Amino acid sequence: MSHSIPPDIRCAQDYEALAPRHLAAPTFAYVAGGSGHDLTVAANRAAFGQWHIVPRLLRDVGTGNTRITLAGEDYAHPLFLAPVAFHKLVHGAGEIDTARAAHAVDACMITSTLASCTLEDVARAGGPQRWFQLYFQPQREATLDLLRRAEAAGYGAIVVTLDAPIQVASRGALALDFRLPPECVAASLAPYPAAAPAQLADGESRIFQGVMRSAPTWDDLAWLLAQARVPVWVKGVLHPDDATALRSAGVAGIVVSNHGGRSLDGAPASLDALPAIRAALGPDFPLLFDGGIRSGADIFKALALGASAAAVGRLQLYALSVAGALGVAHMMKLLLEELEVCMALAGCATVDQITASALQAKRTPC
Amino acid sequence: MSHSIPPDIRCAQDYEALAPRHLAAPTFAYVAGGSGHDLTVAANRAAFGQWHIVPRLLRDVGTGNTRITLAGEDYAHPLFLAPVAFHKLVHGAGEIDTARAAHAVDACMITSTLASCTLEDVARAGGPQRWFQLYFQPQREATLDLLRRAEAAGYGAIVVTLDAPIQVASRGALALDFRLPPECVAASLAPYPAAAPAQLADGESRIFQGVMRSAPTWDDLAWLLAQARVPVWVKGVLHPDDATALRSAGVAGIVVSNHGGRSLDGAPASLDALPAIRAALGPDFPLLFDGGIRSGADIFKALALGASAAAVGRLQLYALSVAGALGVAHMMKLLLEELEVCMALAGCATVDQITASALQAKRTPC
Amino acid sequence: MSHSIPPDIRCAQDYEALAPRHLAAPTFAYVAGGSGHDLTVAANRAAFGQWHIVPRLLRDVGTGNTRITLAGEDYAHPLFLAPVAFHKLVHGAGEIDTARAAHAVDACMITSTLASCTLEDVARAGGPQRWFQLYFQPQREATLDLLRRAEAAGYGAIVVTLDAPIQVASRGALALDFRLPPECVAASLAPYPAAAPAQLADGESRIFQGVMRSAPTWDDLAWLLAQARVPVWVKGVLHPDDATALRSAGVAGIVVSNHGGRSLDGAPASLDALPAIRAALGPDFPLLFDGGIRSGADIFKALALGASAAAVGRLQLYALSVAGALGVAHMMKLLLEELEVCMALAGCATVDQITASALQAKRTPC
Amino acid sequence: MSHSIPPDIRCAQDYEALAPRHLAAPTFAYVAGGSGHDLTVAANRAAFGQWHIVPRLLRDVGTGNTRITLAGEDYAHPLFLAPVAFHKLVHGAGEIDTARAAHAVDACMITSTLASCTLEDVARAGGPQRWFQLYFQPQREATLDLLRRAEAAGYGAIVVTLDAPIQVASRGALALDFRLPPECVAASLAPYPAAAPAQLADGESRIFQGVMRSAPTWDDLAWLLAQARVPVWVKGVLHPDDATALRSAGVAGIVVSNHGGRSLDGAPASLDALPAIRAALGPDFPLLFDGGIRSGADIFKALALGASAAAVGRLQLYALSVAGALGVAHMMKLLLEELEVCMALAGCATVDQITASALQAKRTPC
Ligand SMILES: Cc1cc2nc3c(=O)[nH]c(=O)nc-3n(C[C@H](O)[C@H](O)[C@H](O)COP(=O)(O)O)c2cc1C
Ligand SMILES: Cc1cc2nc3c(=O)[nH]c(=O)nc-3n(C[C@H](O)[C@H](O)[C@H](O)COP(=O)(O)O)c2cc1C
Ligand SMILES: Cc1cc2nc3c(=O)[nH]c(=O)nc-3n(C[C@H](O)[C@H](O)[C@H](O)COP(=O)(O)O)c2cc1C
Ligand SMILES: Cc1cc2nc3c(=O)[nH]c(=O)nc-3n(C[C@H](O)[C@H](O)[C@H](O)COP(=O)(O)O)c2cc1C
Repeated sequence: MSHSIPPDIRCAQDYEALAPRHLAAPTFAYVAGGSGHDLTVAANRAAFGQWHIVPRLLRDVGTGNTRITLAGEDYAHPLFLAPVAFHKLVHGAGEIDTARAAHAVDACMITSTLASCTLEDVARAGGPQRWFQLYFQPQREATLDLLRRAEAAGYGAIVVTLDAPIQVASRGALALDFRLPPECVAASLAPYPAAAPAQLADGESRIFQGVMRSAPTWDDLAWLLAQARVPVWVKGVLHPDDATALRSAGVAGIVVSNHGGRSLDGAPASLDALPAIRAALGPDFPLLFDGGIRSGADIFKALALGASAAAVGRLQLYALSVAGALGVAHMMKLLLEELEVCMALAGCATVDQITASALQAKRTPC
Repeated sequence: MSHSIPPDIRCAQDYEALAPRHLAAPTFAYVAGGSGHDLTVAANRAAFGQWHIVPRLLRDVGTGNTRITLAGEDYAHPLFLAPVAFHKLVHGAGEIDTARAAHAVDACMITSTLASCTLEDVARAGGPQRWFQLYFQPQREATLDLLRRAEAAGYGAIVVTLDAPIQVASRGALALDFRLPPECVAASLAPYPAAAPAQLADGESRIFQGVMRSAPTWDDLAWLLAQARVPVWVKGVLHPDDATALRSAGVAGIVVSNHGGRSLDGAPASLDALPAIRAALGPDFPLLFDGGIRSGADIFKALALGASAAAVGRLQLYALSVAGALGVAHMMKLLLEELEVCMALAGCATVDQITASALQAKRTPC
Repeated sequence: MSHSIPPDIRCAQDYEALAPRHLAAPTFAYVAGGSGHDLTVAANRAAFGQWHIVPRLLRDVGTGNTRITLAGEDYAHPLFLAPVAFHKLVHGAGEIDTARAAHAVDACMITSTLASCTLEDVARAGGPQRWFQLYFQPQREATLDLLRRAEAAGYGAIVVTLDAPIQVASRGALALDFRLPPECVAASLAPYPAAAPAQLADGESRIFQGVMRSAPTWDDLAWLLAQARVPVWVKGVLHPDDATALRSAGVAGIVVSNHGGRSLDGAPASLDALPAIRAALGPDFPLLFDGGIRSGADIFKALALGASAAAVGRLQLYALSVAGALGVAHMMKLLLEELEVCMALAGCATVDQITASALQAKRTPC
Repeated sequence: MSHSIPPDIRCAQDYEALAPRHLAAPTFAYVAGGSGHDLTVAANRAAFGQWHIVPRLLRDVGTGNTRITLAGEDYAHPLFLAPVAFHKLVHGAGEIDTARAAHAVDACMITSTLASCTLEDVARAGGPQRWFQLYFQPQREATLDLLRRAEAAGYGAIVVTLDAPIQVASRGALALDFRLPPECVAASLAPYPAAAPAQLADGESRIFQGVMRSAPTWDDLAWLLAQARVPVWVKGVLHPDDATALRSAGVAGIVVSNHGGRSLDGAPASLDALPAIRAALGPDFPLLFDGGIRSGADIFKALALGASAAAVGRLQLYALSVAGALGVAHMMKLLLEELEVCMALAGCATVDQITASALQAKRTPC
């Protein structure tokens, strides 16, 4: 595994093109794939192609920058690392190296509950800005313990992911018979007992009475909000009514996301869901976006359509597989510079100035 | 012909992919094809792709189920077996095995007038919920006799199919020179004399004065409704005006269908026809849907757009060819579980909760 | 050149598929092609795909027929043979055999000014219903003489084609170096002197002052209308304003056409132009349609969108090349039966009953 | 390098098809490519395909011509040569030969600041109608000197290009490792010192504080307008608000352009931007258009959608590479004749008569 940057990487997306050289085919299929027939994966990408960015002339952007303030906190730029499980799948040091890269480029990394390093180790390796992604555990005590550990480790916010109580595997990964290797365990969950398999009575459904009986509900969220000492975000929102209900419930912000197409196959592109959600929430409510971002232009479009900031999922793993921590840092730098080029040519000196009027819906099917 | 389930069947649609291994090419072409250039077959499939299912968060679906009540009768789920002729074409035991499978998964099977087993044999083999699909016969006596036999055999409803007075063969099947093998006869029709070929006067049309002169009209339907002692449904409705006229005529329900693209090539996708028909009929009139269903997500979309229940045609034959009765039962189980996954992720605990608001029209051409 | 019908002809369009076996490649390219990049040829075909035909149930069409009355004259069906130059290009007997076929199927053939047999010979060979397509000649005397000869030969209407003062060749035919063979001459024009090549002064345009100086204008049409003793139609109308102006000028009917994509490359599909023209003219003005018809469903759609009758161009030549007069007659019979099937399944017993309500715009891009 | 016209050139666009035979692959990739993934290059072309040209009948265009008056000046036709850098890349004599060709066909050539011949040499070689394209130089004195030299050399207008402060290279050209050969230098810029590389403080952005700090602003434009003794146009406008602001600032005209897709990858097609800009400026303000023109029909569409005149970029280089000055002149003649054919068939005797009513938006996706 080479840890220097290949010379033919010219934009962030090139890490996606090169990753298959550094990953076993089933692993790449697992990462690149989504759920089922990967319809939502494809939709996520196609959605960006529906928008053009309109250049503007003669504006002075010489003092431009990408700084943002999100829920009262300052960030160097609007680019986050989305929570992604099991980084060791693609790179020996796992999340430790990702965290180092994030630190190097002043990016806030959201560590997954399913990280292959413990949340404490990741916290130690990374920079000052870190968030923790929480999955509700079968037992409330385990959930609470995870929360307290994350708070203790200095995670500044909790992102609870709610869109994936069921995950149907991607047919591509199934076809290649992908299996998680033994070194990929959810390190932070080691202390907690495994969930007992659901006992179904006759005529009960494996889905409704099985998996879903233990899925979190509004009550569970209320409980979590009452317990948490740091802001709680909810990840996986696609419907405006869920967004406004979550705001009323007291969450600090939401992440518009379809889990990178890895939850319900056939769900809308997250970019397509974004404008209505922003409209429902009004201009100020904190809103993170992910799903399909492969370039700075994609980030620009998400910001223009209402995101306060944007996160990348797969690109992290691709860059990590190609060139380790260096790759992740480089990939992030490329994304940011691509974003700055768009801002400069669209005449936006700050992230605030990126609005829907900078976009034009595509008229022409190419 | 293997009768165990191949290991690489991971979703209901996989039976379609595997069927060509179990069927002669002309037979597969005949089943898979529609009419003419198969335009409507393609449209049926494409229509489902125009809709996304919007996930909802945190709803309690732990007591969820798929039960429905249709025209006063309870069903374990909203999935029917559409009437399909000549099951012996793909499997030695023919409809007998399909009926067993239907029974095993609590599905109502609609036996075709053109079944390759007699309606009485099919009734004996299957479960308590069975409907009979009726084609008007050249002689009223034959039609009436069929009706009486179906009633006597305990079929709970009659589905009279009206959309196929003419069926132009699919070019694909013609090209492979498909012919019905001798064992495929319409077993239930054996007692009745064959229709005399139409005698055309000079200048008369083979279509208008030939085939269509004996096609059923509103009067014939009125007669049938007067005779029948069980509810009568009409299958093949695509126009809202026909739907409301049929309701006024007294049918118990309608089946929105284009005969799986096997009647008028160029007819609209049946899913595209569905919303206007539901709108014309109001929310309560019983409405079955078929055409192009290959997954639980497709069923979910049909239910959301107004169907009370949905039926599968070709999937039956595909599963039957691959793994006999076991295959059909397995295929149905897969469809139902796929439906339950969609319901769970869309936050619908019951079929009633599946409404158009769960869908979003596709914005993005992929 | 075989003159029996190949067994694998199952629909009218199959003649198009088989023609390349009977024609030299440059000849096929010349016939199949249009102008330039063949954009309008493609648009003509694609336009039909934008419409579905909605089946209707239970209507009595047992007395159905395809008869129409057009400008006071009765026709057995709404299908004409469009004027097409040089039939000898594809078949030794040329227009003589086409005329025989037209007669056999009671179709009105519109003989081209550029026929490779004289208009008198074609008239003798064919049936009682014949129209003559007129191109204005460089000298008025020649035009007038042609008109008088056509009237004398019993042509019941004159169709003056106005859309092709310039014809840029198709790139496909150019690439194969197609040239008209010596036997293909405009037989009816033999008596008249060839046009003198335009003399251009310095700075004058080969287009404006060359070709177009002798192109017909409204004055020429008025002159023609004053001279003609039979009804005069105008062919090549795509704009509603031209249509209404022509009606005011006194033409008996118009042909909505883009010359089969052989005039302005990039002109709209003629089917797309049809509805607005019918709307501008009101329901009763005689309106013939051509462009892209390959099936009875296409004819049905043209009739539904406002055509009084429809004409086929290329299919004539394809059928003629494959099986001579027999082929043309067979192709026309297939088209008519395909039309009747659509009428029957759409519940239309007569051509009058084919209206826009029988169509549904395609919702789904396949 | 052959300097006679190949026999298989039948339309202007054929020069694009043949250019790869006369250019090294990296050079062709550099010319044909745009920026990044060439999205805007593709959009430019696709936009023309969204419009049909509607033929009109019987109009007298025998006195037709293509003359226009633009900002008070007469031109033989509405076709300009867009400013294109480094013609020596494709042809030994560079801009000298292009200027000769322009003269031969009475076309106004806009010489680039980055011409590989000096602006004075190009002026001497060409015809009386010449414009100069100006890039702001790092030092105002250099900019002013260029302006004075252009005025002194008889350039009738200055076109200041503002859309390309940053140009990301096309991935295609990067992949082939294209590099400008040593003979390709910006000859007119030889007298001026090279720009000092930007000095970035810690944390400053290579984009905002680097490249963009020296990009021209509204003040710079005001300064230029005050200095210039000839009319000043601005090139690169895509937003109506920029267009109206530029008019208020006092520019003589604008060029709607996205730099042929070589500036912001993902910018709208320039044809798609055109109608709104014309609407914002009203009917009379001088407006040049470029981007994607490959045929006379494309020019017609641009004129119909609001352009006063149109310019070609790449076609110049393609024709120059294939057949030198002769090729460029021939290509221009072909374009003009293609335009005249469209005008004639659309019934437009003059450029003024080409209006939006001559177009019809494409209804049918082919
Ligand atoms: C391999 C993989 C693992 C993921 N694991 C998690 C996870 O543990 N928790 C979570 O909330 N999201 C997870 N996601 C979803 C991401 O947070 C994010 O929503 C998605 O990747 C964004 O789409 P993108 O990959 O196109 O950028 C995962 C995504 C991938 C590709
Ligand atoms: C091989 C085959 C035979 C069929 N036979 C009948 C029949 O006898 N009676 C009937 O009403 N419909 C018949 N149908 C139509 C089905 O009932 C149903 O409308 C259609 O198959 C639904 O589309 P799907 O196959 O895409 O699910 C048949 C369909 C197929 C594919
Ligand atoms: C080879 C060929 C020759 C034609 N010659 C004439 C002609 O002489 N006069 C005329 O009015 N139209 C002529 N047309 C146009 C046809 O009348 C008609 O408009 C067109 O073919 C209809 O489109 P279709 O071929 O798709 O049916 C010709 C078309 C073709 C293909
Ligand atoms: C190789 C190349 C060099 C160019 N150089 C310049 C330039 O120096 N100045 C400028 O204003 N535009 C330049 N352009 C842009 C053209 O002026 C014009 O906007 C563009 O080529 C129009 O698109 P088209 O090539 O599709 O016709 C260049 C374009 C190309 C292809």
